[in-house]
Amino acid sequence: MTAARSFADRLSDRQAQAASLVCVGLDPDPARLPAPLSGGKNTAEAVLAFNRTLVEATSDLAAAYKLNLAFFEALGPDSWRVLEATLRAIPPDTPVIADGKRGDIGNSARFYAQACFDLLGFDACTVSGYMGRDSVTPFLSWPGRGVFLLARTSNPGGADFQQAECEGRPLYERVTRAAQTWAASIHESKGALGFVAGASDTEALRRIRALAPDAPLLIPGVGAQGGHIESVLEAVREGSGPVLINSSRAILYASSGQDFAQAARSAAENLRASLAPALS
Amino acid sequence: MTAARSFADRLSDRQAQAASLVCVGLDPDPARLPAPLSGGKNTAEAVLAFNRTLVEATSDLAAAYKLNLAFFEALGPDSWRVLEATLRAIPPDTPVIADGKRGDIGNSARFYAQACFDLLGFDACTVSGYMGRDSVTPFLSWPGRGVFLLARTSNPGGADFQQAECEGRPLYERVTRAAQTWAASIHESKGALGFVAGASDTEALRRIRALAPDAPLLIPGVGAQGGHIESVLEAVREGSGPVLINSSRAILYASSGQDFAQAARSAAENLRASLAPALS
Repeated sequence: MTAARSFADRLSDRQAQAASLVCVGLDPDPARLPAPLSGGKNTAEAVLAFNRTLVEATSDLAAAYKLNLAFFEALGPDSWRVLEATLRAIPPDTPVIADGKRGDIGNSARFYAQACFDLLGFDACTVSGYMGRDSVTPFLSWPGRGVFLLARTSNPGGADFQQAECEGRPLYERVTRAAQTWAASIHESKGALGFVAGASDTEALRRIRALAPDAPLLIPGVGAQGGHIESVLEAVREGSGPVLINSSRAILYASSGQDFAQAARSAAENLRASLAPALS
Repeated sequence: MTAARSFADRLSDRQAQAASLVCVGLDPDPARLPAPLSGGKNTAEAVLAFNRTLVEATSDLAAAYKLNLAFFEALGPDSWRVLEATLRAIPPDTPVIADGKRGDIGNSARFYAQACFDLLGFDACTVSGYMGRDSVTPFLSWPGRGVFLLARTSNPGGADFQQAECEGRPLYERVTRAAQTWAASIHESKGALGFVAGASDTEALRRIRALAPDAPLLIPGVGAQGGHIESVLEAVREGSGPVLINSSRAILYASSGQDFAQAARSAAENLRASLAPALS
């Protein structure tokens, strides 16, 4: 049944089921593994054990997981296997986002989408739209899968170009508007197009939400990058699209000791609780 | 010795050695393998055989090779092995570019660079700068390695945002100028920063060359995407930075028959000859 539902609907289903807006970001840094898992010879196995433990500790609290592909790619020849095994550890009804920020055209985009959606089975992926229409639309044509297009990112450099005034609007707004017209022209894209909008710029968040009230929003930068939860929730109050608040380091590295799994769970629990007002 | 030289210098060395500006783009599409290699069960092995044959047929003519990571990623669990084996087939003094258009920040960018430069041994990679300064500078800090930052791409959608007038300049120009100031602040970045500038917009090519006369330029879109060689060479005549003219499909798929290797060689030879005027 779920295969017939759009990505936005499946995400909303899971958010209601888990009563959670929390997206747990898996950015497994070998240099930051907790004591019980660090120091071994086999980095890939240690990372996989770390991922499995974290998923196990948070699976009832997570509305979604986001896997940062850079951290897997750095594992070299083992990267694909660790990626597959990590994905298998995540409950099937919990959407998983491939955070690879791909951005290429035509066949290249289709091959990235094929690897991400068909081979690995991700439910959505992050996409960078610098190359324009033909770098985004191929990802929108996989029925039931989703795209989070980079609109306004929460990193310090996010303002360098995204905030630039382009023909009367900041670039991020131009990107948001353009992508919606592209999606509208693709039948399969219903509920597929979402946006990455960082917590550090609540004004941009408010604008993006106003421009795309039904679109899923992936919001990084709460906590570590300094976004305040109350102002973030206030900025996206209007509209019906599912909102995901991503937390990576604050959950993954809540403790570097024997209690790292429990500490991660507590961090996810606290974040879920702080987001509860936005669920009702 | 070469390790101490900048990427731009090593690329120039190879261009002089091969008397060539040709970058052979390896975009191995399993659906387009020539007859002698198609139809088999093991796609990864067929793709690897295709890559090895093409490298063997063109290695004396190529100033550089560009591997499109999307086509490898779509091979799934075998992707890393096929990537490594393809890289081993390329002569060590010929620079190889990882065309992955990565664009992420901090640790993510460093992990991408580590996989690309340290684990796989690529000489340069393509980078997308939508996320700004902190998504580009980590790639510029690997001594002797290079970056081709997306400036003005040759695809139809390339104009959607790159041509948008941002505070008085087209976005691609703003990106070019900003990246140069970033590179100037990084000691290790000497000769590391180049740009992707498509053949389809010779005016943009001319502007980018004028803004970055010493920077390596990677120019796709000659032939298949309709750029005219004479006007492209004319547009980049000024300046001292090495210029690479990339050709992928026109070389890879010059023939789908038994003679595919010879046909690929002839296509590369013809392209090299047509670019000869720009070498002197």
